[in-house]
Amino acid sequence: MKKYFIAKSRRLRSTPYSSRIEKQGVTAYTIYNHMLLPAGFSSLEDSYFHLKENVQVWDVAAERQVEISGKDSAELVQLMTCRDLSKSKVGRCYYCPIIDDKAGLINDPVILKLDEDRWWISIADSDVILFAKGLAIGKNFKVKIFEPNVDILAVQGPKSFELMEKIFGKKITEMKFFGFDYFEFAGAKHLIARSGWSKQGGYEIYVENTKSGLALYDKLFEAGKELNVKAGCPNLIERIESALLSYGNDMDNDDNPLECGLDKYVNLEANINFLGKEKLKEVKKKGITKKLMGVMIEAKEINMSKSIELFNDKNLKIGELRSGTYSPHFEKVIGIAMLEKPYWEVSQTFKISINDSTFEGKVCDLPFI
Amino acid sequence: MKKYFIAKSRRLRSTPYSSRIEKQGVTAYTIYNHMLLPAGFSSLEDSYFHLKENVQVWDVAAERQVEISGKDSAELVQLMTCRDLSKSKVGRCYYCPIIDDKAGLINDPVILKLDEDRWWISIADSDVILFAKGLAIGKNFKVKIFEPNVDILAVQGPKSFELMEKIFGKKITEMKFFGFDYFEFAGAKHLIARSGWSKQGGYEIYVENTKSGLALYDKLFEAGKELNVKAGCPNLIERIESALLSYGNDMDNDDNPLECGLDKYVNLEANINFLGKEKLKEVKKKGITKKLMGVMIEAKEINMSKSIELFNDKNLKIGELRSGTYSPHFEKVIGIAMLEKPYWEVSQTFKISINDSTFEGKVCDLPFI
Repeated sequence: MKKYFIAKSRRLRSTPYSSRIEKQGVTAYTIYNHMLLPAGFSSLEDSYFHLKENVQVWDVAAERQVEISGKDSAELVQLMTCRDLSKSKVGRCYYCPIIDDKAGLINDPVILKLDEDRWWISIADSDVILFAKGLAIGKNFKVKIFEPNVDILAVQGPKSFELMEKIFGKKITEMKFFGFDYFEFAGAKHLIARSGWSKQGGYEIYVENTKSGLALYDKLFEAGKELNVKAGCPNLIERIESALLSYGNDMDNDDNPLECGLDKYVNLEANINFLGKEKLKEVKKKGITKKLMGVMIEAKEINMSKSIELFNDKNLKIGELRSGTYSPHFEKVIGIAMLEKPYWEVSQTFKISINDSTFEGKVCDLPFI
Repeated sequence: MKKYFIAKSRRLRSTPYSSRIEKQGVTAYTIYNHMLLPAGFSSLEDSYFHLKENVQVWDVAAERQVEISGKDSAELVQLMTCRDLSKSKVGRCYYCPIIDDKAGLINDPVILKLDEDRWWISIADSDVILFAKGLAIGKNFKVKIFEPNVDILAVQGPKSFELMEKIFGKKITEMKFFGFDYFEFAGAKHLIARSGWSKQGGYEIYVENTKSGLALYDKLFEAGKELNVKAGCPNLIERIESALLSYGNDMDNDDNPLECGLDKYVNLEANINFLGKEKLKEVKKKGITKKLMGVMIEAKEINMSKSIELFNDKNLKIGELRSGTYSPHFEKVIGIAMLEKPYWEVSQTFKISINDSTFEGKVCDLPFI
């Protein structure tokens, strides 16, 4: 597939780490929340194998925060998500689909409860801040909403625990998944969560003090030398194998959370008020008409820049592939597809055209691994 | 400056014209409204000279539309902009700063009044649809808000009038600037406006029927052969010389319209209700503390990926350059900068560091030409 350059400008915001990762060999970017998100260093496969065995440091500053604080902040945050946050605890992260009044997905952030009346919404790629501001203004909520200067560094991979212990001590290894706490480095306190956009384990460091964050960046590479640390980025193969959904790729505003297999984050019985609740009750009663599933395809290569249609043996369109990659583990192409009813059953077969050749595929459960 | 590839995916939406422009030699993209926007064909200068003398066809599908219709649509649209739309007319385009309750800019779209209760907001790069939805939900407005399938083709340059007349007849040349009307081609009606993101004259075709739009795309190149038509894109040199502001580059949510020289679109005396009105009255009374101005720099080259600070002869920071380019017309670098009070006067001098060398510059009025 022919490659194209990215035309940089102030509008595609750099991160505090951009000059470092450019020295470390980043080759490609994607844009995420109007910001540069590194998308390639060495080959995708090399980086995949390295991530699964070692430790990587990722510049994921493009995961922006929407800070919501004030008297009505809990009410506003709950209004935006179908997940019940009434029993949420300070010091914890919550994966929360954000939906509109038609139950269409707007984002799928991790929400951090910083205090009873202070939240960070750690967003995927859409301007959640504008939705929150619109709602707050319209409802006359007493809240403060802004994008703080937070530039996340992710430390991911099985050796991330050892690396982080070297810098922050044993306490950091005792943190539970999706917990967060504050750790000191070079004169600044950093919020660090046990989280990240891989299933290989690790942390996300919410850097507010840029100077200390840059010193920490360098320290991670210095202390990580003996652990074979490398600069990396979210890995397409690993994230599809692990079925970490990507908003805008696998799902968008035309999909609701029940169609995307996010049922456990949809709390229709809870005594809470959120947008799209009645719509989701109706969808649940009638049943969904499309569903996000895994697929395996008997092909050795795929490069996706848009959806690819899937057909059954009667040449009827039964769905569309939304993300795909060659998986060295399965030795074939795997992907995430939206299948029409009733074609989403496991083992449903289909045909797909990739680079003008037709391949056979099969529907399967998520995650793959 | 080292170049980086763009990592394509479904999230960075292709346009109906992507496959055509890739055959026509596009080399670089930017991302705008989660969509591919071509950013380079031949050299920037060649394209600049060509645009100023001939006619180009641009894939600007990334200029997305937010359609707002229904009983309360006029009230919602007015609520979002400080420009008085109370006397707006069907069939006209209006450049409108969209601001929040703190008067911070959210976008600077052209708004098309399709009907008394139906509007298209033709947006710059931010999710205005989420702001509109939030406000509408919060205020319980009776409106329908969605992103229609509209993929704009711009025809720009002094010979655009001749080219469009060949296809649509004399009537199209009689349309006034920022007027729009409907024209038939290949079995479909297209809304065509006399507008576009250059000052070289031209049209924007709001393509809703993709099949007809693709036929029209090909027809423009066929009929335009004798006019030396080329595929192009918004040109950095031309747009800076003409001072066409770019949201996210020249201004953002931390700036208000009065700071950006958009005074004539701020109607504080009108009997209308919009967000940030009280804040803007306060700003107007106290006076602004920074101002967007033109600058000329005694340098021959610049590649900007973020703001560059400007210093006076006492090494005090007096502002920041936000967009810049070498201008063949002025034979030096020109740009758009935010200057602090009182350093925004014309002829104010400053120093700027570009690629580790220091250059002298001067503040000037906008537009340059």
